[in-house]
Amino acid sequence: MLGKSRAKYIQSLGQKKVRDSEGMFIAEGPKIIDELLISAKSHLQEIYAVSSWIETHHEKHRDVRVTEVTETELQNISQLTTSNQVLAVVKKYEVIAGLLSEGKVSLVLDTIQDPGNLGTIIRIADWFNIEQIICSRECADMYNPKVVQSTMGSFVRVQLFYTDLQEWLEQQRGIRIYASAMEGRDITTMDRITEGLIIIGNESKGISPDIMKLANVQITIPRKGRAESLNAAAATAVILSHTT
Amino acid sequence: MLGKSRAKYIQSLGQKKVRDSEGMFIAEGPKIIDELLISAKSHLQEIYAVSSWIETHHEKHRDVRVTEVTETELQNISQLTTSNQVLAVVKKYEVIAGLLSEGKVSLVLDTIQDPGNLGTIIRIADWFNIEQIICSRECADMYNPKVVQSTMGSFVRVQLFYTDLQEWLEQQRGIRIYASAMEGRDITTMDRITEGLIIIGNESKGISPDIMKLANVQITIPRKGRAESLNAAAATAVILSHTT
Repeated sequence: MLGKSRAKYIQSLGQKKVRDSEGMFIAEGPKIIDELLISAKSHLQEIYAVSSWIETHHEKHRDVRVTEVTETELQNISQLTTSNQVLAVVKKYEVIAGLLSEGKVSLVLDTIQDPGNLGTIIRIADWFNIEQIICSRECADMYNPKVVQSTMGSFVRVQLFYTDLQEWLEQQRGIRIYASAMEGRDITTMDRITEGLIIIGNESKGISPDIMKLANVQITIPRKGRAESLNAAAATAVILSHTT
Repeated sequence: MLGKSRAKYIQSLGQKKVRDSEGMFIAEGPKIIDELLISAKSHLQEIYAVSSWIETHHEKHRDVRVTEVTETELQNISQLTTSNQVLAVVKKYEVIAGLLSEGKVSLVLDTIQDPGNLGTIIRIADWFNIEQIICSRECADMYNPKVVQSTMGSFVRVQLFYTDLQEWLEQQRGIRIYASAMEGRDITTMDRITEGLIIIGNESKGISPDIMKLANVQITIPRKGRAESLNAAAATAVILSHTT
């Protein structure tokens, strides 16, 4: 059973300002909840699930608070068009701003505004073992339900932090900064990138000029046909396939 | 002014069976309509646009039938959440089934069901100058408004045809067939693919076994992190960046 005020609270986590003030967000669906149960159990505040999910999962996770709800109750608190068995209220992660892992490749996102794109980029980063993503404040919120959903669970393994990108990049000394651009060195033929920062720009405007001038190397994915642009997630995947 | 019966007809083109019987589909937004005006003007049956679009475009395209509509009328016939200045009813393309361009790389899609994914793949193909895509009958319809929309206009340059994939592949003699798989040769280190067919599989199930066994070479994008899979469009982009 789900009380009215509790339902209202969960629905309100669809809004960024509530997520920020409460330090909580929502994750949904068996796949993502499984990932959280494996990698971030202590962050799971409450789980709301239909009986079939509880039957197959509860024995394994007695220590997590699970409330049984009906399909209708679940749909009512879900951010998805069609709710999917289980929803969790999750504690946000503490992110240590600005501490970069040395000797690795990290991703920098300048104004990736579409939640689906950001989620897909997080999933791609996870595939290529990128552990950190530095986001400009104009990027979509990583705790937006659509972002969480499209990461397919990868958000538990990739660390994101939001900052004033220009200021932050100016502070990075001795780190090679690559910027994805329309003109530059051909990423598909140059030596693999082994460490440093790779900046990916906005879906339609690319990297802003103030950020671009902080880059050491402009890289590009040569256009052989006539499409005007490559989508940001696809470009990220191509570039990361050329790192080690 | 837009008559009621005309509005109804345009709305009905949201359905595949109507598109099939009428041989027509819908395209929307200034960018896509511009691409059509440049590359496929003869396919444009009718354009419905708000006055601002007409003012900037009409002089250039006197020979295309344009009807001025209000924002409300446009929203009423639009397949988008928010209509975007202009909508066109477009004649479908004739596709010569099965005729492959020699000495080139073509893409084969096995059950790409999500319209957004299919559209993005068409756009990626256009970027890398892939001219032909062979789709299994289980793929999303290329004339689905969401597909058309997410190609960002690239559908005018990439030829798609739908067929029984197994039967068609069995008929291809002397053509090298590459299949994207979880295990296989590392696409990022092997020689570039210069010609042949590259099969991309379903978003969650991959390539079906009957199709997989027709491939000569299994290729893979090595997973370095822990994401369970790479999305189909991202995988396509990575693989195509390793072709010539």
